[in-house]
Amino acid sequence: MNGQDIPARVASAAGAIETLRRRAPRIHCLTNTVAQAFTANVLLACGATPSMTVASDEVLSFTDRADGVLINLGTLDEDRKKAMRLSAARCRETARPFVVDPVKCDISAQRRAFATELLPFRPAAIRMNADEASSLEASLEGEMPCRVVTGRTDRILCGETCLSVANGHPWLTQITAAGCAEGALIAALMPVAGDPVLAALAALLWFNIAAEEAAARTLEKAAGPGTFQPVLIDCLHAMDAARIMEKARVT
Amino acid sequence: MNGQDIPARVASAAGAIETLRRRAPRIHCLTNTVAQAFTANVLLACGATPSMTVASDEVLSFTDRADGVLINLGTLDEDRKKAMRLSAARCRETARPFVVDPVKCDISAQRRAFATELLPFRPAAIRMNADEASSLEASLEGEMPCRVVTGRTDRILCGETCLSVANGHPWLTQITAAGCAEGALIAALMPVAGDPVLAALAALLWFNIAAEEAAARTLEKAAGPGTFQPVLIDCLHAMDAARIMEKARVT
Amino acid sequence: MNGQDIPARVASAAGAIETLRRRAPRIHCLTNTVAQAFTANVLLACGATPSMTVASDEVLSFTDRADGVLINLGTLDEDRKKAMRLSAARCRETARPFVVDPVKCDISAQRRAFATELLPFRPAAIRMNADEASSLEASLEGEMPCRVVTGRTDRILCGETCLSVANGHPWLTQITAAGCAEGALIAALMPVAGDPVLAALAALLWFNIAAEEAAARTLEKAAGPGTFQPVLIDCLHAMDAARIMEKARVT
Repeated sequence: MNGQDIPARVASAAGAIETLRRRAPRIHCLTNTVAQAFTANVLLACGATPSMTVASDEVLSFTDRADGVLINLGTLDEDRKKAMRLSAARCRETARPFVVDPVKCDISAQRRAFATELLPFRPAAIRMNADEASSLEASLEGEMPCRVVTGRTDRILCGETCLSVANGHPWLTQITAAGCAEGALIAALMPVAGDPVLAALAALLWFNIAAEEAAARTLEKAAGPGTFQPVLIDCLHAMDAARIMEKARVT
Repeated sequence: MNGQDIPARVASAAGAIETLRRRAPRIHCLTNTVAQAFTANVLLACGATPSMTVASDEVLSFTDRADGVLINLGTLDEDRKKAMRLSAARCRETARPFVVDPVKCDISAQRRAFATELLPFRPAAIRMNADEASSLEASLEGEMPCRVVTGRTDRILCGETCLSVANGHPWLTQITAAGCAEGALIAALMPVAGDPVLAALAALLWFNIAAEEAAARTLEKAAGPGTFQPVLIDCLHAMDAARIMEKARVT
Repeated sequence: MNGQDIPARVASAAGAIETLRRRAPRIHCLTNTVAQAFTANVLLACGATPSMTVASDEVLSFTDRADGVLINLGTLDEDRKKAMRLSAARCRETARPFVVDPVKCDISAQRRAFATELLPFRPAAIRMNADEASSLEASLEGEMPCRVVTGRTDRILCGETCLSVANGHPWLTQITAAGCAEGALIAALMPVAGDPVLAALAALLWFNIAAEEAAARTLEKAAGPGTFQPVLIDCLHAMDAARIMEKARVT
């Protein structure tokens, strides 16, 4: 993309944080049991309203009340698959944005197949690491959702757009569910940011700059990844648009 | 109720805290997967012994060993419903107190129907927010469990009794599972407090005064809702009857 | 056992910590929904790579990628049982070590029967408290896995070997999932420590000495079991072989 666009995009992403707080979107998370509590706390700290029910007989009621949906394939089971199919189809019908996080689809063929099955419902974005992205490459070719590939540097790929976000801290890989919660934050920004790239950019900057601040606060007390986790929630809660613009490292 | 009763009731509620710590009641929690870990930690910090199994072939063994039961309808599924029916019936037969928390029954008709189905087993109390209470109003008319309606001010309604508890802190709405854990604490006080109103009053005061103390401690360090959560557990653990009586705001 | 062996065993156990960090073993945890997040955070802080999927159609893919497996019987249900049978059989076939934690098998006959059913697959170790050990005694007689019986003093029993570990802190019993996470750490040390006794000894020393340090840090700030939990993760992360050797109380 044109490099001159970047400061404008960062400014828009920073603004999206304030919009999210003002609108308090409801986000329904079909996510794994390991990540549920941390994900809910991240969304609450950021100003969104999470719900987490997985039962297939209730998922449409919750989808219909939500502004955005997260479909995370961790601890996948038959009940989850059924609920995810129903919710994705309803999102497609009602033009609600949903985000797919195909956790560890590189390890399980069943999960890879299920991730592929969700693509025709047109997720607004897919969040994955490099291994997961490789394993889904063939399936993703025809489809064109916004792809968020996380790693030491995160990339957002969408049509002609390719942004790199260098913010973050290694401790994010030493606590469970950080990536899963980040996926939920992308889903929470979808209904407020105006477009998928901005939503993904806002989520990555918010989460990763908060992680940098939390690590700095924690390290000055000679602490480690355990203390880092609640402080990360504090920093997500305290983030503002000015700090996003000051600290963003986007190319 | 007669306003002159209030100081006596607060004193009894404060005493119930010490009784709970002395007796260490076993509380079986049929609760949602998001709230399980935080709920267990709250009960342990308060001096109760939690168990959390949901499987229907084991639920009676755990119910029979428990002094009180929590039935929380979050992340409801068919297995949970089956276990909840069995446990509620056994509680009724064996005169064990159980508390129902009909989480988000205002959003899901299935959940509303299921909450209604539990009422004939005579829960000792129902804990809900105003929206959930409205959606269950018709069903609750004939039955008369103690109703605990939480919000900015919490109310305890039981027969002629109507108490208002003004303690608490807004951060309780910014962490997940606070209400669910409070419901478990009501269940834990049922077998020790002597009557449902006192059990509910003791739980609301314990939880909400601990939240005030935790917020004060956290704010003086410029922290937020992430740090607040472990400090809330510390404050629940450190609470005593004298502080309950000093800080209670009950009308 | 010969008392003169103890310093050598403690030194080997201390060395196993460094080996684990260097090798970063993948540990697949079939564990209860209450303990999943804390267990994952403990393993990550110690340098292992956890996975947590329970679905029976995926469990072999995850087992095949793992260096060790934990089978924890908390929140047991039919799906978990099916996945556990498959994973235990695969571990047996492929000589992968797995650890069984028969949580609360003293309360549920079904769980006791299921724990017994797993023994012929030859777990490398069984971790249990005294009540659970008593309830399984008859079944364990014929079989000879390494038994880790936790309590005020922990014991490791294996053939002729009987070690007692006196490290630890009472707050470990006031947070949920501490024992479950310790079981996962035993599983994580199995593929790196060379033998089951050393793996169990290394895990008990690592976890319990970290708990002593975390309690000391927390108490000097007048805090409680809520703050203790994230600090415990910090202390697990910061542990080194020298401190293990200095602080071990093994007889």
